[in-house]
Amino acid sequence: MGSERVSGSGMAKNTHMRWRLPFVCLLWEVAMVVLFGVFVRFDPEADAHWKAEQQQQNVTSDIENDFYFRYPSFQDVHVMIFVGFGFLMTFLQRYGFGAVGFNFLFAAFGIQWALLMQGWFHSFENGKILIGVENLINADFCVGSVCIAFGAILGKTSPVQLLVLTLFQVTLFAVNEYILLNLLHVKDAGGSMTIHTFGAYFGLTVTRILYRPNLDQSKDKQGSVYHSDLFAMIGTLYLWMYWPSFNSAISNHGDAQHRAAINTYCSLASCVLTTVAFSSLLQKKGKLDMPFLESKLHIQDTCGIHNLHAMPGLIGGIVGAVTAAAATEEVYGKEGLISAFDFTGDYQDRMPSVQGGFQAAGICVSLAMAVAGGAIVGAILKLPFLGDPADENCFEDDVFWEVPEDSESSSLYHMHDPALKPVTP
Amino acid sequence: MGSERVSGSGMAKNTHMRWRLPFVCLLWEVAMVVLFGVFVRFDPEADAHWKAEQQQQNVTSDIENDFYFRYPSFQDVHVMIFVGFGFLMTFLQRYGFGAVGFNFLFAAFGIQWALLMQGWFHSFENGKILIGVENLINADFCVGSVCIAFGAILGKTSPVQLLVLTLFQVTLFAVNEYILLNLLHVKDAGGSMTIHTFGAYFGLTVTRILYRPNLDQSKDKQGSVYHSDLFAMIGTLYLWMYWPSFNSAISNHGDAQHRAAINTYCSLASCVLTTVAFSSLLQKKGKLDMPFLESKLHIQDTCGIHNLHAMPGLIGGIVGAVTAAAATEEVYGKEGLISAFDFTGDYQDRMPSVQGGFQAAGICVSLAMAVAGGAIVGAILKLPFLGDPADENCFEDDVFWEVPEDSESSSLYHMHDPALKPVTP
Amino acid sequence: MGSERVSGSGMAKNTHMRWRLPFVCLLWEVAMVVLFGVFVRFDPEADAHWKAEQQQQNVTSDIENDFYFRYPSFQDVHVMIFVGFGFLMTFLQRYGFGAVGFNFLFAAFGIQWALLMQGWFHSFENGKILIGVENLINADFCVGSVCIAFGAILGKTSPVQLLVLTLFQVTLFAVNEYILLNLLHVKDAGGSMTIHTFGAYFGLTVTRILYRPNLDQSKDKQGSVYHSDLFAMIGTLYLWMYWPSFNSAISNHGDAQHRAAINTYCSLASCVLTTVAFSSLLQKKGKLDMPFLESKLHIQDTCGIHNLHAMPGLIGGIVGAVTAAAATEEVYGKEGLISAFDFTGDYQDRMPSVQGGFQAAGICVSLAMAVAGGAIVGAILKLPFLGDPADENCFEDDVFWEVPEDSESSSLYHMHDPALKPVTP
Repeated sequence: MGSERVSGSGMAKNTHMRWRLPFVCLLWEVAMVVLFGVFVRFDPEADAHWKAEQQQQNVTSDIENDFYFRYPSFQDVHVMIFVGFGFLMTFLQRYGFGAVGFNFLFAAFGIQWALLMQGWFHSFENGKILIGVENLINADFCVGSVCIAFGAILGKTSPVQLLVLTLFQVTLFAVNEYILLNLLHVKDAGGSMTIHTFGAYFGLTVTRILYRPNLDQSKDKQGSVYHSDLFAMIGTLYLWMYWPSFNSAISNHGDAQHRAAINTYCSLASCVLTTVAFSSLLQKKGKLDMPFLESKLHIQDTCGIHNLHAMPGLIGGIVGAVTAAAATEEVYGKEGLISAFDFTGDYQDRMPSVQGGFQAAGICVSLAMAVAGGAIVGAILKLPFLGDPADENCFEDDVFWEVPEDSESSSLYHMHDPALKPVTP
Repeated sequence: MGSERVSGSGMAKNTHMRWRLPFVCLLWEVAMVVLFGVFVRFDPEADAHWKAEQQQQNVTSDIENDFYFRYPSFQDVHVMIFVGFGFLMTFLQRYGFGAVGFNFLFAAFGIQWALLMQGWFHSFENGKILIGVENLINADFCVGSVCIAFGAILGKTSPVQLLVLTLFQVTLFAVNEYILLNLLHVKDAGGSMTIHTFGAYFGLTVTRILYRPNLDQSKDKQGSVYHSDLFAMIGTLYLWMYWPSFNSAISNHGDAQHRAAINTYCSLASCVLTTVAFSSLLQKKGKLDMPFLESKLHIQDTCGIHNLHAMPGLIGGIVGAVTAAAATEEVYGKEGLISAFDFTGDYQDRMPSVQGGFQAAGICVSLAMAVAGGAIVGAILKLPFLGDPADENCFEDDVFWEVPEDSESSSLYHMHDPALKPVTP
Repeated sequence: MGSERVSGSGMAKNTHMRWRLPFVCLLWEVAMVVLFGVFVRFDPEADAHWKAEQQQQNVTSDIENDFYFRYPSFQDVHVMIFVGFGFLMTFLQRYGFGAVGFNFLFAAFGIQWALLMQGWFHSFENGKILIGVENLINADFCVGSVCIAFGAILGKTSPVQLLVLTLFQVTLFAVNEYILLNLLHVKDAGGSMTIHTFGAYFGLTVTRILYRPNLDQSKDKQGSVYHSDLFAMIGTLYLWMYWPSFNSAISNHGDAQHRAAINTYCSLASCVLTTVAFSSLLQKKGKLDMPFLESKLHIQDTCGIHNLHAMPGLIGGIVGAVTAAAATEEVYGKEGLISAFDFTGDYQDRMPSVQGGFQAAGICVSLAMAVAGGAIVGAILKLPFLGDPADENCFEDDVFWEVPEDSESSSLYHMHDPALKPVTP
């Protein structure tokens, strides 16, 4: 089962992946290998010539290599992308393999393509992309926005569709990021605009385009079961705990990284209490729900990313614009202000108030790119040969995964099978 | 179900949380926001003025910011508090949400309150609390002692009771810590006294005060099931693996951090073999039990914290006192001895033998604070409006959590329901 | 049940561990304590005299202590050994406790014995083994090779057999490593030869020697169930995510660590796509399988380590030899080449091409040690008093672990019990 079925609307769906998935994976991986061979080289701090250069530049110790400033944060971010986002999405009762496994697949492809796309825009010298630990972090960030979009379409797409989506979303992400950071000279350390706002509205647009009118057929599979919620808590906690690393990973060395980590730690702690308060208020007996996220928009946003990323991303962007506009030398110090907003070179005369305006423009650009890009990519994903599952196969691992036989018979909704009815004593 | 029930003793219990829990959460979070606004500022190393100060103090590189000495250890400690302690307690078959979720809730509140309490005692300057990465670690440590106490009362309290307990325990922790570290000038790097001894005896006293004579009604729920034990192993392993970070996180820079990590690594490895040996010896066929902890005290210590924290904490404290008393310049070197015990300023003439006496006094103070404090807090927790569950609802997520419907029908003790009896062929 | 059974071949098996397991654990732990007391001391950078020495050597900052170069990577490696390998092996439906618990037990013993064995060979000065953070990483690496071998015999041995195996394998590992690194002056940063090739062929030889002709009796238990596969994904992801730390942990300070991390990050990302492609190609409907490993060799290699470690280890070794032989000053720079291959002292005149030859010799030595050692250790493990389980008890936690009663009745293959058959409506 799983290969050819008639959907609710009567249209035959071919979800047979045997030739399509290997073809896309191998084609793209070959492209990556060739492009890496042609374009990618080591950053000076990761290159075998660093010893010599270090002596020239009078750097006294190996410990000043950027690796030691950023590698611990990088690993935390890496865990967030693969374990955090992967397990966050395991709450669906029959979609654990898809959640963790597809996230693993598209993220692994996405970071390669992001290294190239971001490399061409940001670390391209003499025809070569020079990569160091900061590039790895940025690639993970970029893929984070795809993980966010994945939350909206979770359970409704084939792995081939996801790989196609990743190719386009990473490309658009890099363009949007270039416009914001380089052209508008916007500051977006935690990624409110480039990651959350862009990723969430992109995903919401795609899921709107892919709207399935008869999806309630598989409504029973959209719930969680006891252990699937515990797996989802692993993801939730890793995203929560490592967020200080996410926000400080590419901040400036020294006090800036330190400050970003402290701020994130404190804000996240306070969010837990607020979330619990509202989760309890919204349930009629005041019981808590897990995970604490729900969508009321009816645009088939599986994981509720509107509340989780879209709104917070917008709020973060707006607060950032206001804070920038209100920044004074009194609070930051002269040196501090310059280094916080990088008011150097072409931007040495930019005033905080003007910076606030550019930050606001950054939000608008991100929204526009996300909605327009999401609409186009959503349309592309409707191409029939990409193998999307029929409505009744959504939220079900069995279509694309070899599911252990035993577990099917113990599956919880099989337990409701009237054939296995309780015997009256 | 779950909102109003008659307990074994005939007293009606109201566990309806809809107004109480949001009220407490929001009240306390508002208080936190106000207090943080008034009191909390960045430590000089996390402040935007650091660049300027760095130049004055002739610090050559950003890498000498305390952030780089302690942040990796901080993140490990953070994982121990939220994933380690949270999942450690998931061994109960129907209390996984309560274990992970309540731990998440009170720890997130506790670290905010701890930043303030410990800040007033230890990093208060010109009317402001200055926070940096070391404060974050200390806040996590303080909350660690609440996690330990939680182990004793696991499954028997409402979230409101837990938030009240956290408020008081964090307060007492900070006072006790101040007496030990500042007044007695005691060394307690791994927290034997301030964290383990204090936390465990506090929790044991509270659970004694909350004693429920008819608790065996829910005895069947106090066991584990196969997968709940595997979730508990995630917690166990993270606590075990990251303990070297816990013990070295706030040691002095350099050799002291290095040494603390090595010592902890070696001791923990040897403990595994000893634990397995005794676990096997105590079972009649030599089978191993998981998790490896059990209580024989009959004071309703759910998670067996007497063996896990109380005894080891005491032993650690005593060994620390003896080692301090026996420390010599021969082993530590003159510089090493001064830096290990901080024999400077007012304490420059204190001898190792005298230090041993003060360490012993520290153990006594911790014990007294724990027992007296635990008795008072236990009495407060008996107030009827805090929403404690009836005896037959203990160790059961369903009272305070929205539990997925499907999973109830698959719940293991439902399987034993005589109505679903096997059909004779 | 579980203590005395008649196996398929009619031979009685005594798996009663009550005296044997505690005896071995305590005997070995006492030996460790004595040997550590006699031999182990702190490395100068972890010793309390470091402050003084630092001043002499004109080291300006505590941050230059090796601890800060390597501790974050060490913790990642530590997580790989205990959570990564432990959970990777939980895919068997009834062997989760054995997978995580036995891995925990033998790895905790192994790291102690490895600290001693590797210490005698590599950091022995004036009759003492001096240990610092690099020794901890090397001990974890050594134990990693035992974890690999464990994959081949998973489910078929008693804990006493595993402790005996660990004692011998760690010893042989240290000898092999000494021959390669010190006598042949081979470079093996990622451990292709010393860890993967040695560990895998050792394990494969042992499982060949322990061949059980009637093992298909427990074939039904060799499969996975839905949630066991998700637990295995935790292990898989942690091994995958932290591999950059594994490969860079003991590289030279500075650019070498940086480069090793980047290379590993990129290679691992590309492997995911290739693996998914082949996994899909090999299934008739193109569905994906989890975990992505399988053995076709029929030598009872439970976890498929031949594909996972043996072949990649060999390939890595060969590629290493070729790359070394082809290294030029053009690519590495003069300084870079010397520092990459440590062409100093006795080796200052060694040419890259000669180095390639020695690397190839290293592969052969590793293979020979693994096969010869594995054959001898396999024979030792056949000794009847080591408590190996009967064929029908293989892959079953119940023999050596106290398994929660409830879970047995819900166990999936019990569900197939014809006694609990569906009622025709």
